[in-house]
Amino acid sequence: MVGGSLDAFIGEVHRKSAALDGAFDLVCGAFSSSAEKSKATGAALGLDESRVYATFNEMIETESRLPEEVRMQAVSIVTPNHVHFEPARQALEHGFHVIIDKPIAFSLDEAKQLKEITERTGLILALTHTYTGYPMIKEAKHYVDTGKLGTVRKIFVEYPQGWLSEPLEREGNKQASWRTDPTKSGEGGAVGDIGTHAANIAEYVSGLRITELSADVNITVNERLLDDDSAALLRFDNGATGVLMATQVAAGEENDLKLRVYGEKAGLEWKHSEPNTLLFKPLDAPVQILRAGTGYLSEAATRNTRTPAGHPEGYIEAFANIYMAFYHAVTDHINGELKPLSEYDFPDVDDGVRGMAFVKTMIASGKSDVKWYKVDY
Amino acid sequence: MVGGSLDAFIGEVHRKSAALDGAFDLVCGAFSSSAEKSKATGAALGLDESRVYATFNEMIETESRLPEEVRMQAVSIVTPNHVHFEPARQALEHGFHVIIDKPIAFSLDEAKQLKEITERTGLILALTHTYTGYPMIKEAKHYVDTGKLGTVRKIFVEYPQGWLSEPLEREGNKQASWRTDPTKSGEGGAVGDIGTHAANIAEYVSGLRITELSADVNITVNERLLDDDSAALLRFDNGATGVLMATQVAAGEENDLKLRVYGEKAGLEWKHSEPNTLLFKPLDAPVQILRAGTGYLSEAATRNTRTPAGHPEGYIEAFANIYMAFYHAVTDHINGELKPLSEYDFPDVDDGVRGMAFVKTMIASGKSDVKWYKVDY
Amino acid sequence: MVGGSLDAFIGEVHRKSAALDGAFDLVCGAFSSSAEKSKATGAALGLDESRVYATFNEMIETESRLPEEVRMQAVSIVTPNHVHFEPARQALEHGFHVIIDKPIAFSLDEAKQLKEITERTGLILALTHTYTGYPMIKEAKHYVDTGKLGTVRKIFVEYPQGWLSEPLEREGNKQASWRTDPTKSGEGGAVGDIGTHAANIAEYVSGLRITELSADVNITVNERLLDDDSAALLRFDNGATGVLMATQVAAGEENDLKLRVYGEKAGLEWKHSEPNTLLFKPLDAPVQILRAGTGYLSEAATRNTRTPAGHPEGYIEAFANIYMAFYHAVTDHINGELKPLSEYDFPDVDDGVRGMAFVKTMIASGKSDVKWYKVDY
Amino acid sequence: MVGGSLDAFIGEVHRKSAALDGAFDLVCGAFSSSAEKSKATGAALGLDESRVYATFNEMIETESRLPEEVRMQAVSIVTPNHVHFEPARQALEHGFHVIIDKPIAFSLDEAKQLKEITERTGLILALTHTYTGYPMIKEAKHYVDTGKLGTVRKIFVEYPQGWLSEPLEREGNKQASWRTDPTKSGEGGAVGDIGTHAANIAEYVSGLRITELSADVNITVNERLLDDDSAALLRFDNGATGVLMATQVAAGEENDLKLRVYGEKAGLEWKHSEPNTLLFKPLDAPVQILRAGTGYLSEAATRNTRTPAGHPEGYIEAFANIYMAFYHAVTDHINGELKPLSEYDFPDVDDGVRGMAFVKTMIASGKSDVKWYKVDY
Repeated sequence: MVGGSLDAFIGEVHRKSAALDGAFDLVCGAFSSSAEKSKATGAALGLDESRVYATFNEMIETESRLPEEVRMQAVSIVTPNHVHFEPARQALEHGFHVIIDKPIAFSLDEAKQLKEITERTGLILALTHTYTGYPMIKEAKHYVDTGKLGTVRKIFVEYPQGWLSEPLEREGNKQASWRTDPTKSGEGGAVGDIGTHAANIAEYVSGLRITELSADVNITVNERLLDDDSAALLRFDNGATGVLMATQVAAGEENDLKLRVYGEKAGLEWKHSEPNTLLFKPLDAPVQILRAGTGYLSEAATRNTRTPAGHPEGYIEAFANIYMAFYHAVTDHINGELKPLSEYDFPDVDDGVRGMAFVKTMIASGKSDVKWYKVDY
Repeated sequence: MVGGSLDAFIGEVHRKSAALDGAFDLVCGAFSSSAEKSKATGAALGLDESRVYATFNEMIETESRLPEEVRMQAVSIVTPNHVHFEPARQALEHGFHVIIDKPIAFSLDEAKQLKEITERTGLILALTHTYTGYPMIKEAKHYVDTGKLGTVRKIFVEYPQGWLSEPLEREGNKQASWRTDPTKSGEGGAVGDIGTHAANIAEYVSGLRITELSADVNITVNERLLDDDSAALLRFDNGATGVLMATQVAAGEENDLKLRVYGEKAGLEWKHSEPNTLLFKPLDAPVQILRAGTGYLSEAATRNTRTPAGHPEGYIEAFANIYMAFYHAVTDHINGELKPLSEYDFPDVDDGVRGMAFVKTMIASGKSDVKWYKVDY
Repeated sequence: MVGGSLDAFIGEVHRKSAALDGAFDLVCGAFSSSAEKSKATGAALGLDESRVYATFNEMIETESRLPEEVRMQAVSIVTPNHVHFEPARQALEHGFHVIIDKPIAFSLDEAKQLKEITERTGLILALTHTYTGYPMIKEAKHYVDTGKLGTVRKIFVEYPQGWLSEPLEREGNKQASWRTDPTKSGEGGAVGDIGTHAANIAEYVSGLRITELSADVNITVNERLLDDDSAALLRFDNGATGVLMATQVAAGEENDLKLRVYGEKAGLEWKHSEPNTLLFKPLDAPVQILRAGTGYLSEAATRNTRTPAGHPEGYIEAFANIYMAFYHAVTDHINGELKPLSEYDFPDVDDGVRGMAFVKTMIASGKSDVKWYKVDY
Repeated sequence: MVGGSLDAFIGEVHRKSAALDGAFDLVCGAFSSSAEKSKATGAALGLDESRVYATFNEMIETESRLPEEVRMQAVSIVTPNHVHFEPARQALEHGFHVIIDKPIAFSLDEAKQLKEITERTGLILALTHTYTGYPMIKEAKHYVDTGKLGTVRKIFVEYPQGWLSEPLEREGNKQASWRTDPTKSGEGGAVGDIGTHAANIAEYVSGLRITELSADVNITVNERLLDDDSAALLRFDNGATGVLMATQVAAGEENDLKLRVYGEKAGLEWKHSEPNTLLFKPLDAPVQILRAGTGYLSEAATRNTRTPAGHPEGYIEAFANIYMAFYHAVTDHINGELKPLSEYDFPDVDDGVRGMAFVKTMIASGKSDVKWYKVDY
């Protein structure tokens, strides 16, 4: 693992998610840019001292020289965005599979380079767009794919958070600090941090691609250096339109990513505050409450569920579903039996590239008086 | 009453709303452009045959010659949009107060003329933007007005309907036919029919005005003649931004107007599917569920409530609240004691003018590649 | 109208409900045991002074001597329970139809006498068990009747209120005072006030009858004179079992009557806080959200609905549905075309008798160490 | 681990819960009464073959002879109820701490014996009453303990499931088979399987004890051998009363354990379908929505939460909270620093004894015409 010292948030989520289903053991780490912190974290996690490294370079190089049956098999990168590319690049170049927290990189250019490397090396790169790991999102995709909505016409996706309503970055909040720092986050603030999730889930479920957008991107809190609020009108490649909203200054909101997809015949609604529920809304019949863990769901939903209906799974389980899909791909790769990536159903380097193109386009559009911007990559 | 024959929808809502609190008696009507239909409707409603008229002109002229204590005191106009202006104009010119279904008129120009006439005559004109009649919308406004949110930063308002997902206007559905007919509805379809409600409630609660917008306006169903779908990025006069969505092709949705307003310190959420509830979301404390009929609400909310908490009121009651406010203004006018209109708290001709300006701007923006359009009136 | 002076609650609900659909005009009243209050109420309601009476005896006698086309056609009795029987008896004996607020009377014996009189006179007696007036309760009954649940096995009905958590009757609250006064309410407090609603709705929807019960009946607030809390295990005539709960000391609860009925194949859930929704829960398929005003509902639900889906109706509308059914029965009676009462679908004297038997049995069981009590009437 | 072969449900939940936070490693197991199945399960879990045992006796004896730093430190017992006591007894007698799935044993007598052994040996016994592991249940308890409700008056607890609406035990469903088999479950069916959870959570949150009850216990499905439905009127040791319902034939219900506690000043509501939410309902102020992961919660809630507000945790996390509390107690015991068990806050042998007394009393009461039964243990 690269990053994820004891006072980080997402590193611990990665560790629990990887541990949950028993597929991955944490064997080594460079947990912090501070060697001391890294050491303390490794100790707290019960790692062999010799495999707690001061830097990721050291980790990758040292591990790559260990015997195959001992050395790490994949690297989990859970650092802020500006430290995604370099460890990913080095890991891949040294033959390690990689799983990275989103967004994939600091810039679209970095993302494209990672794509080039994975194509060249044939190694696996997974991206933890957590929300597409939920079973009811799998079901939603299944409903669209099997034509239950007819042609998709309209997509609403929103991601309201309220925690950056105040200038926490000036009050020593570590999570706020790097997220609002353009040298660490890249050119997008809210757009990169949560807007990419919104765009990703909309595209994943609908099977469509955002081709053009018209964005309003704002810095709401005085003296903040990156956007904390954004919205966009969307156009998709089949002619559907939509609205995306991603804000971190919706005071009082927690983290309620919500997706609505409407087709000719029916609509779908999913929201993160009730992740085990998917609403199916046919035109002239009662709305149906589809529930995780029931017997009537698709194979894709069932495969990503651990407990029967009424035993709620949550964020860590969704995260772990991505880890499990990554695990299966890695295992098959090791065994020389890798199938097409789409069969493993996890966000990959292409999602990463599109995410960075989305950020770039949102920011450019937000500054422009031209109404529609193409999303190019 | 002008319009509202037996097979209409909104006419009956007006009648029940006016009857509910016993303030208005229906005494006469020109219920249809068909004299026969008008007669049948009058009979079914138990009206004196002599006061069921073939045309609104006839009604207004005849009634104006009746003795003061007999003749009608106000006219309710519940026709399609293209028949709002003329009966309203004539009624006002003959000295009658007027209550009109929204939008106020066929065009911004008509709306401005009505404004001129009301200013000149001093008569009352009310507009049934139903949703602002709900007690919890009064409470929301009270919360904003009394600073519980701090400065408003962000407004999301959405109005998803699904009933026009299919070409009902080609299947003989009367409600669909005039609403999608530009000769009857005016230049806006969904924009006029429901977008005006969304814009009105956002402005009413926030106390802000939409100054600029960037709209995406679509005809989704083939061969339809007016927009059935719209969305816009919004800018308000205090610098706040927002998103508005008004669509009639969100398959499976009923009529769930929803408003969210976020300030520096807290957010508010109200939705029409649970109209007796208002969520107050402070930054660092539990969300509060404010409920109609409770003892802790403002005077404005309480005044617009009939039953104690837990005895739900609905659409007709909200509608009736506008009728009651109109009644009080009319009564005070008759008694020569008219107070400033704002004290009666009903949508008036200014809301009507702004509504028509909103429609005009949305349609213009929707056709344009210029990003931001000013809302002028 | 008997009772319903200006400071009463339920009288105004009756008046608005009767006015809503234009079926009834209020023509006379004895609104209070205080002649002065009665007069003031009549004046406020715009009644002809000559038809505002000091006592209900006077009203019934005087009206019965008026010409048929002038005199009242039905009497609405909205007094506390101890003044239900005598005005009802007199009205019926003088040839007037009667609609009474629940519970029907002060005692089972009074209820049985009213039954005898209605049978003898052939006049109509309706009882305002409001909650069975809701369209989605009609739909629930339709689902049971048409076998969508299979044999009913289990019924849960609960009616939690919190408003009597404090001794409001000692603080001058008029509503609390008579409801906790055994000389006005009868032998049941919460049991009579809300328990009867719970029992009635359970029996109405299921089509079953409560045959035995085992009750826990409590006075929770010190020095209160009647029960403010009750619960019972239930047995129904088809062998189904159930639980009933009716309490007025569930602090923080409003008025959320809730019914759940489970059969071999599916369950149903309805709650008063979302009265326009009925959940249908099949064994192995998604829960369906049935909604008022939609096209897929039964005739009985549709007949009791005024507005399309997404335009919520509430308590007054449910109340008005009973008034409309009563109106149709009265009209048919006047026209000599009365059908069997069940076709009008309103709570009648039999419901009233069963309600009083329920109260009597609950109170007796609550005081006893015998486990099961038969509900006899 | 004893029990938990690959086709079991709860064994896998125990394994994931133990793994989630990295506190426990699974080192050995006797996973099935079939040696072959046990072996296959051990292999699938990647265990050392030498530590996969054919019987729990063999496991306990063999492990107890391994060097201290190698042998297992605690035993997790996840078998059907009739195989709880003997492995627990043997493990404790051999010096191993024990964590057992609920109910603790087959009978009250067995439970009391386990209590005697834990008292004699000083070893830790934890019971996985999962639902009390949820952070918002900790918060609910905190609210009661700190007087925010005043004296508790009323408790409603319900546990509706629908999965046994059909005779699954005759269709080869393994989960249904042992649960409806009196030789494996003990004298209670639904009462033991889910009623004990309901009783436990009511007592845990309120801090009260059920002293008397009056139960209705039913076999609803023909030819079933154990109760599948139960309800009871409850009396608590402070004079509060309540209602408990635990049924497995509520067709269409999943697993929605729900608790409501009402005091003089306020009420609380929690339900398993939204486990990260706790409603606090003061008498005369808005209901508050308390949410897991927020900054305003008690230490006990916070300690049992992994993710920030809006990142839902679920069933496995609640389960893991019990494992973590057990882990801390075991660790402190090993280090000779064991604090009073209440400080670790997990269900222990006393909860187990009370649970079995509850089952025994429910069953006895259900068969009896005596109204109130004391819960003795």
